[in-house]
Amino acid sequence: MTLRVGVIGTGAIGQEHIHRITNKLTGAKVVAVIDVNKEQVQAVAEKIDAKIYETGHDVIKAEDVDAIIVTSWGPTHEEFVLASIAAGKPVFCEKPLAVTAEGCKRIVDAEIAHGKKLVQVGFMRRYDESYRLLKETIDNQRIGEPLIVHCAHRNPSVPQGLYYGAMPIVDTFIHEIDVLRWLLNDDYVSVQAISPRKTRDAAEDLQDPLMVLLETKKGIRINGEIFVNCRYGYDIQCQVVGETGVANLPEPMSVLMRSEAKLSTDILVDWKKRFIDAFDVEIQEWINDTLKGEVNGPSAWDGYFAAVTADACVEAMEAMNSGKIVPISMPECPKFYL
Amino acid sequence: MTLRVGVIGTGAIGQEHIHRITNKLTGAKVVAVIDVNKEQVQAVAEKIDAKIYETGHDVIKAEDVDAIIVTSWGPTHEEFVLASIAAGKPVFCEKPLAVTAEGCKRIVDAEIAHGKKLVQVGFMRRYDESYRLLKETIDNQRIGEPLIVHCAHRNPSVPQGLYYGAMPIVDTFIHEIDVLRWLLNDDYVSVQAISPRKTRDAAEDLQDPLMVLLETKKGIRINGEIFVNCRYGYDIQCQVVGETGVANLPEPMSVLMRSEAKLSTDILVDWKKRFIDAFDVEIQEWINDTLKGEVNGPSAWDGYFAAVTADACVEAMEAMNSGKIVPISMPECPKFYL
Amino acid sequence: MTLRVGVIGTGAIGQEHIHRITNKLTGAKVVAVIDVNKEQVQAVAEKIDAKIYETGHDVIKAEDVDAIIVTSWGPTHEEFVLASIAAGKPVFCEKPLAVTAEGCKRIVDAEIAHGKKLVQVGFMRRYDESYRLLKETIDNQRIGEPLIVHCAHRNPSVPQGLYYGAMPIVDTFIHEIDVLRWLLNDDYVSVQAISPRKTRDAAEDLQDPLMVLLETKKGIRINGEIFVNCRYGYDIQCQVVGETGVANLPEPMSVLMRSEAKLSTDILVDWKKRFIDAFDVEIQEWINDTLKGEVNGPSAWDGYFAAVTADACVEAMEAMNSGKIVPISMPECPKFYL
Amino acid sequence: MTLRVGVIGTGAIGQEHIHRITNKLTGAKVVAVIDVNKEQVQAVAEKIDAKIYETGHDVIKAEDVDAIIVTSWGPTHEEFVLASIAAGKPVFCEKPLAVTAEGCKRIVDAEIAHGKKLVQVGFMRRYDESYRLLKETIDNQRIGEPLIVHCAHRNPSVPQGLYYGAMPIVDTFIHEIDVLRWLLNDDYVSVQAISPRKTRDAAEDLQDPLMVLLETKKGIRINGEIFVNCRYGYDIQCQVVGETGVANLPEPMSVLMRSEAKLSTDILVDWKKRFIDAFDVEIQEWINDTLKGEVNGPSAWDGYFAAVTADACVEAMEAMNSGKIVPISMPECPKFYL
Repeated sequence: MTLRVGVIGTGAIGQEHIHRITNKLTGAKVVAVIDVNKEQVQAVAEKIDAKIYETGHDVIKAEDVDAIIVTSWGPTHEEFVLASIAAGKPVFCEKPLAVTAEGCKRIVDAEIAHGKKLVQVGFMRRYDESYRLLKETIDNQRIGEPLIVHCAHRNPSVPQGLYYGAMPIVDTFIHEIDVLRWLLNDDYVSVQAISPRKTRDAAEDLQDPLMVLLETKKGIRINGEIFVNCRYGYDIQCQVVGETGVANLPEPMSVLMRSEAKLSTDILVDWKKRFIDAFDVEIQEWINDTLKGEVNGPSAWDGYFAAVTADACVEAMEAMNSGKIVPISMPECPKFYL
Repeated sequence: MTLRVGVIGTGAIGQEHIHRITNKLTGAKVVAVIDVNKEQVQAVAEKIDAKIYETGHDVIKAEDVDAIIVTSWGPTHEEFVLASIAAGKPVFCEKPLAVTAEGCKRIVDAEIAHGKKLVQVGFMRRYDESYRLLKETIDNQRIGEPLIVHCAHRNPSVPQGLYYGAMPIVDTFIHEIDVLRWLLNDDYVSVQAISPRKTRDAAEDLQDPLMVLLETKKGIRINGEIFVNCRYGYDIQCQVVGETGVANLPEPMSVLMRSEAKLSTDILVDWKKRFIDAFDVEIQEWINDTLKGEVNGPSAWDGYFAAVTADACVEAMEAMNSGKIVPISMPECPKFYL
Repeated sequence: MTLRVGVIGTGAIGQEHIHRITNKLTGAKVVAVIDVNKEQVQAVAEKIDAKIYETGHDVIKAEDVDAIIVTSWGPTHEEFVLASIAAGKPVFCEKPLAVTAEGCKRIVDAEIAHGKKLVQVGFMRRYDESYRLLKETIDNQRIGEPLIVHCAHRNPSVPQGLYYGAMPIVDTFIHEIDVLRWLLNDDYVSVQAISPRKTRDAAEDLQDPLMVLLETKKGIRINGEIFVNCRYGYDIQCQVVGETGVANLPEPMSVLMRSEAKLSTDILVDWKKRFIDAFDVEIQEWINDTLKGEVNGPSAWDGYFAAVTADACVEAMEAMNSGKIVPISMPECPKFYL
Repeated sequence: MTLRVGVIGTGAIGQEHIHRITNKLTGAKVVAVIDVNKEQVQAVAEKIDAKIYETGHDVIKAEDVDAIIVTSWGPTHEEFVLASIAAGKPVFCEKPLAVTAEGCKRIVDAEIAHGKKLVQVGFMRRYDESYRLLKETIDNQRIGEPLIVHCAHRNPSVPQGLYYGAMPIVDTFIHEIDVLRWLLNDDYVSVQAISPRKTRDAAEDLQDPLMVLLETKKGIRINGEIFVNCRYGYDIQCQVVGETGVANLPEPMSVLMRSEAKLSTDILVDWKKRFIDAFDVEIQEWINDTLKGEVNGPSAWDGYFAAVTADACVEAMEAMNSGKIVPISMPECPKFYL
């Protein structure tokens, strides 16, 4: 049986998912597409012989469409996810699930009201081999109970004028926010922000680097470093300190070189290469799960939790260096999502 | 378009290929199967809804079979590969291509006579991510021209009574023989063997460890260590010394641990885990190439070269420590395979 | 010329310094000793043929004593250092310089009044090869300007009942306090403390692990982790994040092993082994400098700064998790110490 | 008690030893010097207030000289070592002990006839921290019995016209010859040489790289790579494969850097830095042992064994690629040296 997928939004990420479903993965085919850019959607549709629809809602309603992928402009996500739930169809939505925490909450409520899980959010790090190895290490109790996490998200540079203000949180740290909850099987309760000495490579409208200190329910403390003009490479670090040992996120595989007076491995520069395999695994597992009628990936609840946490981080960032501790208030997780 | 595959031999490796084609890869489906074990083939066929044939030749001739996978008992490979060529059908044959160099030569001759490449041999290391990174490093001239290769093939242990005599060459080092020719873009011209001090863990009928010294046309020297009772893990090492630098085969990805007074990463123990991804890539690329009417993987010529080299290594092993240098004599590579 | 040294206090650390001066280092000999434990000092004096005095003050005044080493009980340090200054003799004082910041201040004032530097404090990490390599890396601008420091001080365990309360600061983190000022060529301005989830291996009267967040004048932020029941080893980590790169404190030299399914190096368990070479270098350089009439090691000012910083850290620890930011207030560094 | 040392030969290495004895080490002073270069010896003597003699023999005979260091031109070593034995004085002789194996034999015979060990040869690698850690690992049975050694001696470059012919053996590999005997507690029985593809950076009169295959009494096989124009750095590698594990010589301590898309440590370029600490330890231990009337370092027998082995290696090199196995024939080690 083949999963017939409708894709709403055929921009960069939409095209990538269409490409992997068509050429690399198994069990699904893209049969319906829609985009506000008519020329683009035409080109995409021809290549894979998919039908073009007038609106996202038409795609959702199409009888030969079994499941939806939402890769349209962020502010439209909520509407299409809600419509998919209304149609009773499984939907994979790229982050953000909705542009506000309230929007996410509406999706959670709608899904619970529907009575069956349908929504998966595109947090791809959970599908990255290195994070999975780290989680396995923790879950197998090889370092005892986690107590502290030191993590860093470093980009070589960001475009001036296009990356500023709260974007270190909402565009960058959002990935750590989701993946660390999953890694630690824990929820956040508060956050504080601190600004280290600023690099001369950062624009005026950007605090770079930035430190975010999260506290979890179990009392685990997370030191998050976000440094998006680090110059040297795209580097994702995560060290978990446990009661009996310490575990580090594996480095991407690289040839060990002896050359020019250095013993070295390469650090990636292009972020796209870092998680490219994770995207494949993510969509393949979504296809497999969807064909079985299951949702096992990041849920609407996870999307909602990430949104609330990000809001608190932004609030902490606005009060940074004041010592202000911003609470992260969420209701109890409904049984539906346990 | 879907490649319809017939599988001859549904033992362990045959079932694995069937499983990956059916559940993990894209572009192919297994439609025909045959095995001497009727019960086994019955079970396999039912699961994937494939037709069972009486003989391998029936599978090869079946009209709805586009391509063949030969995973039967080694001594039958030559016959089925020759029959596939005769039928003009692409064939993927697990190693060995044939049990003698002469058998391999007959396949090469038949394929040339047929006029179009159809045969691919199952040397999966060429599809391993770590070897590909190492080859890229060499091909990009990051270490200059290769001069020396130090390599080691280590297994934790081998079953006494089942692994003996020349098996370190024909069962184990055969992988290095193929992958190093590919890695270096070079051919072998001679070989010598040396026996180091024997580990107490080796049975009487086995020289373990063993050292094999290969020379290539360009004069590169390969120090091959084969150590199949090394106890500590399954460990594939390869270091290429070039004119301006040295490159090591990457270690498999692993969490860096601080635990019990050690800073460590895990070494695999189970060989199956080491190349499991390589098998997926190998078969997926074979499917893709076959659908395009191409053969880009290890050719019949590569299988022939490996067989002749292995024979010379065995001869060198029989004269080990005598200083005997055994020539590796191959005709010029026909244009057909260049 | 040989430096004639008087040692006040012949307990463990005193005996170690006597041993290294006598047997390993060059340029000095211990000629005078004193300790409250008469039996012990007798045994020590006999071995090296040194004269035993009645009081520390007698040692300081002895005509054939050129320089003093103070390794007596902490609360007596101030008195003997002040007496050495009064006698115009160079003095090496193990940490703490004095048990209160005020005591340190009195020493600073006395030394300035005397008009010539005489005092060196026993912060041995500045003499450790790994810290020196890290400092060289920073000073050579290989990572640009430092922005963030992530550091960790981990002990396998501490004795219950003997290590509690503020000791993570005053006994353990005190080393980081001094060495990081030196490493960064910077001073501290404030501190905050946070308690992560507590390990089950910590006694009731101990917060373990503990996080200390220091801010420097230049705005560098230091994440200090103190974890004294980490179980796995004695492990000193320091990572400096700069504008163009990141540098890690080197690990102690260790054989890379492949054994029992692990690729590993050893982590030390005994803290004494970690800095044993640093003590040799420290005392040798002190001898050399003293013979030249110089003081180049950690000064009385450094000891005073460490004491004030430790007091602020303890205050922050008492208010931990409140968001309280404790200022670290020091006068401008007098020219005398620049 | 201070050891009064006479130094024969005040060239580069002679001056270095004088400097370390005078300024860094304890227990000795240089009281007598001699060199064919009168101006040089004058300058050296003045600095340390030593007496200048007319001949090496005068230094050896001088009443106030307790022990001799021979750092003169190689061909004069034998004469001065024999004279020291005749005078009953301990002598430290830089390598070579004598320029021929016969010369070494004469020293061995003279020392045995004298009846007490007096001679130590300057093989400094035995005093290198990394080799000592590796030996400790082997001696503690952490890898079981050694079976194979893979080692490499790489220099960035050698001066054309000054380094040629057999110098890879007699100037370079001679260090591995001594240190591996010591490391393995074993003797050599045969050797074979092989020439890999030659680097374009090597002069016509030099085979570079070169492979030397040694066999020991216990059957251990050593793969020695000598590559003196490797370009990338001065790099000494040694991997010992044992029955239960593999141990690598530690890399020199270096800061781990993240910079310019590389995760790297530095490789030394200047060979002098690699073993500078080993020279200090070597001479300090020689002083200590000599004061106790002992010789615990590399003996005359070790120097003799190295000379015979080097001769065999050169013979193998002259017949390289022929498969010729050159025996290394030594008499049983006399009890005197056990």
